Amino acid sequence: MISQRMEDMLLNGLATLVKPADEVAVILESNTLSHALLLMTSNKYSVVPVIDNKSHMKGLISMPLIIEAIMGIEDVQFDKLGDILVRDVMDVEYPVVREDFELEDVLRMLIHSSFVTVVDENCVFVGIVTRQEILTGTNRIVHNFEREYDVSDKRAETLL
Amino acid sequence: MISQRMEDMLLNGLATLVKPADEVAVILESNTLSHALLLMTSNKYSVVPVIDNKSHMKGLISMPLIIEAIMGIEDVQFDKLGDILVRDVMDVEYPVVREDFELEDVLRMLIHSSFVTVVDENCVFVGIVTRQEILTGTNRIVHNFEREYDVSDKRAETLL
Repeated sequence: MISQRMEDMLLNGLATLVKPADEVAVILESNTLSHALLLMTSNKYSVVPVIDNKSHMKGLISMPLIIEAIMGIEDVQFDKLGDILVRDVMDVEYPVVREDFELEDVLRMLIHSSFVTVVDENCVFVGIVTRQEILTGTNRIVHNFEREYDVSDKRAETLL
Repeated sequence: MISQRMEDMLLNGLATLVKPADEVAVILESNTLSHALLLMTSNKYSVVPVIDNKSHMKGLISMPLIIEAIMGIEDVQFDKLGDILVRDVMDVEYPVVREDFELEDVLRMLIHSSFVTVVDENCVFVGIVTRQEILTGTNRIVHNFEREYDVSDKRAETLL
């Protein structure tokens, strides 16, 4: 359980930490790796969500996954980039929560992932929660929590 | 200023949050982009520190930077990967602190970077502090701080 005070300070008055889908670069599962690589290069993203043509969340694609897919025994076969589809290479095990997620679940997932994807009840992609938002909240907590609240060591008798 | 209680809980008894250099994948500035791309693919890293042959910190190299460097007007020219050196492409503006850094400086830098590099007084690469470590500490704080300390709202008179 996260205390209400901590949650409030992490959120800082925001209704949500979710960055909405229309502000997130995504790739269609039917796109080629060539297309994905160009989009990720121009946006400077290393990992992006993959959706189908009805916006259902399908997986994640990353630059290392793309290059790995075209690595031959002796060299990288870049001419294959246009032949392989994102759906054949994407990672289908990814951190995902529903819109009514508990903050503590997302916080735990973010230890191991740079973002957590959020979907609605039909698995339609809604947005992401990023480490950046949490780091911003962490800065707020470590700087302000003890200014805004009275904090003291537990009294001796309660420790006995 | 970060309160001592918050800093202690973030560190959780560790002497440092720094992941030492011998546990971090690095690339020499004299390596080719081809070498860098293979190393990053096999390690699944998207960004890695670049050092010279005396371990001085020189910059960061990322997969988007590598692909961007070989993008022609019409297509990606992969045959150039072996001709371009990491030093010609790396980002030389990167977050860096000395070993005696203040935690609050690193926390602020990590809002915008996935890791902060640490160097000694001769600019020799010592290690990195990652968002993962801070996220682990954030989880500890939001779950345990109010268990370990008495927290109460500021008394009314102090707010007047």
